[in-house]
Amino acid sequence: MTVSLNPDESAELISVAEELAAVARVETLRHFRAAGGLAAENKLDGGFDPVTVADRGAERAMRAVLARRRPQDGIWGEEYGVLRGQSGLTWVLDPVDGTRSYMSGTPTWGVLIALSEETAEGPGQPLIGVIDQPYIGERFLGAPGLACVTGPQGRADLRARGPRPLAEATIFTTYPEVGTPEEGAAFARLARQCRLTRYGIDCYAYALVAAGQIDLVVEAGLHPYDVGAPIAVIEAAGGIVTDWTGGPAWAGGRVLAAANAEIHAAALAVLQG
Amino acid sequence: MTVSLNPDESAELISVAEELAAVARVETLRHFRAAGGLAAENKLDGGFDPVTVADRGAERAMRAVLARRRPQDGIWGEEYGVLRGQSGLTWVLDPVDGTRSYMSGTPTWGVLIALSEETAEGPGQPLIGVIDQPYIGERFLGAPGLACVTGPQGRADLRARGPRPLAEATIFTTYPEVGTPEEGAAFARLARQCRLTRYGIDCYAYALVAAGQIDLVVEAGLHPYDVGAPIAVIEAAGGIVTDWTGGPAWAGGRVLAAANAEIHAAALAVLQG
Repeated sequence: MTVSLNPDESAELISVAEELAAVARVETLRHFRAAGGLAAENKLDGGFDPVTVADRGAERAMRAVLARRRPQDGIWGEEYGVLRGQSGLTWVLDPVDGTRSYMSGTPTWGVLIALSEETAEGPGQPLIGVIDQPYIGERFLGAPGLACVTGPQGRADLRARGPRPLAEATIFTTYPEVGTPEEGAAFARLARQCRLTRYGIDCYAYALVAAGQIDLVVEAGLHPYDVGAPIAVIEAAGGIVTDWTGGPAWAGGRVLAAANAEIHAAALAVLQG
Repeated sequence: MTVSLNPDESAELISVAEELAAVARVETLRHFRAAGGLAAENKLDGGFDPVTVADRGAERAMRAVLARRRPQDGIWGEEYGVLRGQSGLTWVLDPVDGTRSYMSGTPTWGVLIALSEETAEGPGQPLIGVIDQPYIGERFLGAPGLACVTGPQGRADLRARGPRPLAEATIFTTYPEVGTPEEGAAFARLARQCRLTRYGIDCYAYALVAAGQIDLVVEAGLHPYDVGAPIAVIEAAGGIVTDWTGGPAWAGGRVLAAANAEIHAAALAVLQG
């Protein structure tokens, strides 16, 4: 199925996405930098994958908005799982992307909200996406024909930057090791060709691609709720997001986000090296 | 010489520091995320050390404030060098700490301002420090008897967190390689004992120590203007900053910032391993 939205539908769905971001902002800020630290839990034995009270509170608040405004749509949430819909559309929610940043007080975590086509396998093509940074008060929005940021400096259109050689490019990833040893080696091959490599800012890096500030984000081991919003925002701003074979990145896994087709092709060739 | 400030002097000097931060905010924001990128220059042949128009404009603006309000004090600036003073005090200025973050649109660079004792060798003990993040509109201030942050959530006191084992600690540094191979190995030894290691947020990491969010920041190859403000802010919030031998860190080089004496001692032992 391919969903196409008319302008009225699009405006209504953007309004829903903005309300979701607004309630998530309240819930996540309630606990950000709270004195004494958060009651973190570990989802993975032996690993460090904190789930915060904020994470769950924000997803519950967003689900309450959807129950009222969009009961016909599906939901694919990080914390509370999958609810199938009847509309062919599903809301893909990551209430706190970058929980390690959140837990350490760093203002580069974000609330990720996407409205995607619903497929039998999960979220498909994202149509609308929001990357919201509650502490800064900054919201990156992508939708058909619309790409903008609102924040401390007001409102501005988003436009990914134009082509430049890898040797002049800036590349981001979250962890220096990236993923498996093979994934780490592929990233290192690409990063060595770039001018500047930076780490550690989670979903905010995708927002910087859309904002025309950087050229590439390469990550591995992602979930559908990690990528839906970044895809929608970056594509609306003129960029490209695929997996490491050039196919759709909706399902997560290995993701390559690029400011334009030229640098996407150059990076893909090196990753596949 | 040891300088001690009376309350009136302290209030006046804090007011000067705040005016410096205010003018630097205007100059740095003027060019942050500017369309088309900045005209960056390379200070080091073969390296990547961008100096932005913003960097120089902000230092000039701060020097103009000091010429008017504190002509008797020295200045030790990243961009325009050393001006000796007659008061025994010197202003240590880094108009854009984290130029790579600035150039890539990341909101974790900062304006660093310290008022330090002036010694024959350069800046000595910092008395007052400001870490300002202009885009977020967030200012961390440390002075005798005062440690506070003002930002999007209003004003709050700063207090570094209490002791915990390294195994429960969060450690930050800017670059995964840290410095020389020996410095990188020492950092890796320490990071392996910590719960969480994060990279890439420049001076903002020191602010997070003062704000009670993280336990340790370890860096190498720093300049005096990189450390003066972090020392003043962290010490005012109850933390400790030294070099890797436990001595003063005013001169830069290898820096260990810790939330409290206990974790400082534990980290120092591992670094000296």
